[in-house]
Amino acid sequence: MLPDAAPALGLIKASVRAQGGYTLDAPVSARKLNQNEAAEDLPADLKQEILARAAAAPWHRYPEFVPRQLCEVIAARHGWRADGVLVGNGSNEVIQAALAVTVAEGDTVVAPQPTFSLYRLLTGVCGGRYLPVPLRGDDYGFDVDAMLGAARRERARVVVLNSPNNPTGSALPAGAVERFLAETEALVLCDEAYQEFGGPSAIGLLAQSPRVVIFRTFSKAMGMAGLRFGYALAHPDVAREIAKAKLPYNVNTITLVAAQVALEHAERFEARTRALVAERERFLPRLRQLPGIRVFPSAANFVLLRCEAIPAAVVFRRLLDEYGILIRDVSSGAGLRECLRISIGTSEDMDAVLSALGAILRP
Amino acid sequence: MLPDAAPALGLIKASVRAQGGYTLDAPVSARKLNQNEAAEDLPADLKQEILARAAAAPWHRYPEFVPRQLCEVIAARHGWRADGVLVGNGSNEVIQAALAVTVAEGDTVVAPQPTFSLYRLLTGVCGGRYLPVPLRGDDYGFDVDAMLGAARRERARVVVLNSPNNPTGSALPAGAVERFLAETEALVLCDEAYQEFGGPSAIGLLAQSPRVVIFRTFSKAMGMAGLRFGYALAHPDVAREIAKAKLPYNVNTITLVAAQVALEHAERFEARTRALVAERERFLPRLRQLPGIRVFPSAANFVLLRCEAIPAAVVFRRLLDEYGILIRDVSSGAGLRECLRISIGTSEDMDAVLSALGAILRP
Repeated sequence: MLPDAAPALGLIKASVRAQGGYTLDAPVSARKLNQNEAAEDLPADLKQEILARAAAAPWHRYPEFVPRQLCEVIAARHGWRADGVLVGNGSNEVIQAALAVTVAEGDTVVAPQPTFSLYRLLTGVCGGRYLPVPLRGDDYGFDVDAMLGAARRERARVVVLNSPNNPTGSALPAGAVERFLAETEALVLCDEAYQEFGGPSAIGLLAQSPRVVIFRTFSKAMGMAGLRFGYALAHPDVAREIAKAKLPYNVNTITLVAAQVALEHAERFEARTRALVAERERFLPRLRQLPGIRVFPSAANFVLLRCEAIPAAVVFRRLLDEYGILIRDVSSGAGLRECLRISIGTSEDMDAVLSALGAILRP
Repeated sequence: MLPDAAPALGLIKASVRAQGGYTLDAPVSARKLNQNEAAEDLPADLKQEILARAAAAPWHRYPEFVPRQLCEVIAARHGWRADGVLVGNGSNEVIQAALAVTVAEGDTVVAPQPTFSLYRLLTGVCGGRYLPVPLRGDDYGFDVDAMLGAARRERARVVVLNSPNNPTGSALPAGAVERFLAETEALVLCDEAYQEFGGPSAIGLLAQSPRVVIFRTFSKAMGMAGLRFGYALAHPDVAREIAKAKLPYNVNTITLVAAQVALEHAERFEARTRALVAERERFLPRLRQLPGIRVFPSAANFVLLRCEAIPAAVVFRRLLDEYGILIRDVSSGAGLRECLRISIGTSEDMDAVLSALGAILRP
């Protein structure tokens, strides 16, 4: 028997109670194309190198307070400064910290819609006002003028830009981040989780404005979603403030070792990324030839499509039940009517998707 | 050349700017007794078992959304329910989430002083009002009546109790948490990071009140500070709300494996904890025989002392420079005048501490 929860629930913020929380049902499947993970596990020799170094590390000791050497490698990779690098337990953690130190009760956060659902959730926890600006209706391209207008009109404290954008795959046009910096006074958070797969990076703007913060993850192109590693690049003074909302010892010892080893072999991940992009470019035109769907442009490691003949929920279910292919049904999201998202996997995965979709969609 | 940071710093909350941030300088030393870590690394066979299971796991996949099997093992360990278990990247993360969903601008959080500094920091990030209530001046015992009075008078939304308390080692008296639940309307957060080493646990109260949340860590008695694992135990409805401020996929795949393996060998950790407590009980009376210091009672894996003859900073420095022993100089903390904290290490470590302190303190 549980006690009545009411006396405790009354102490939870209304803005939190109102939220649904982030959840994901993940049925087991032969082909897992629902989370934009890397197509394949880390090469076995890299895993072994990481595990050997991990075995030699003391696990009973806290990780380094600031992993200086790793921050220097990351800084050098991007032509930035080590004191402007903040490592996180996944990039989500540093995004959360950046919002936590800026967004108070009633502050406005502008973001495109649809986009990654976590921004809204985290803004709500901070008590902020989340103002979504629709992407263009025809192709899900960023409506930069509309976003700028909203940010100026509502005096947005923060603008969040995810480019390429999840779940649409749309990349910001060149010069767009520059306009947000020039035409608003907001802090511009650029989530570049998928940037390795296409579109411009805002990293070059770090030297020009203290109001841009860049987030990168090792969960996509670096293929380590299971190990949780990401980082922010920011002006050192801004990084110092964001660090105050970041928990001490937030990245564990083994993940720090893994990130270090991965960066020592960066060229192998770059080759994997080129192969992934080539696979996307092979897959997209063939997908476009299928009847009854509309395929949107993608600069990411996934593709969004709209079902125009058969309901998205039916296509999703049949792919899973009849073909063992798990994709993401995003059709319940705002602005995503009848849309499905498919991660780019191996060539074999994508051939299986095309063959299954062909069978489902052809009358 | 960096751009001027002022336009960005103006966007950071004043409550954050005003804070110092959590930092720790950790000079290299032969005997590291400054972070209340386990005295020794995980046994080699357990490390090997964890690494073998980790090698077989897919690192490119996100970890489980909710690690059901692990939550069930944890629930069974404490006689609680799996849907009332929330795992975290260290217990700090679940403490942060609990504060984030309850504390808004101006809400009062009552905690003892001195205590773990993170509670104040996290309350500040939420915009809350942190109200420290001094421990008793003579022995750093909890002043339960004073805390209750403050919580009632200021209508505290949250009370944080760390028992045994860091850095004093003081345990809450039996029945104290019951009084906070009965005599206030606050959410009572019980950080039991050190509970395995002594003092009562509030876990039994979960079945009686939805307003108590317990936090446990694997960084102390379980000896895995480097892997970052902790959890909260709460009423399932409260756990569901706290989960909304917790990032998805917050605990990495290898740490989940490590926690599972450790719990399968729980009796080995219990034996280590008994040995640690025995070492503390051997160390304390001998420490009390040294001149020029006052030693406080401890139910934890560390001991607090006050230097009454030589300044704490001098004792700290000489231990480090002349004897290679790193302890924690906490003397700059509120209510901790001339105090030093020493983690309990191996028998050899503690013999070295006694011998070095003896040489430093004896006139």
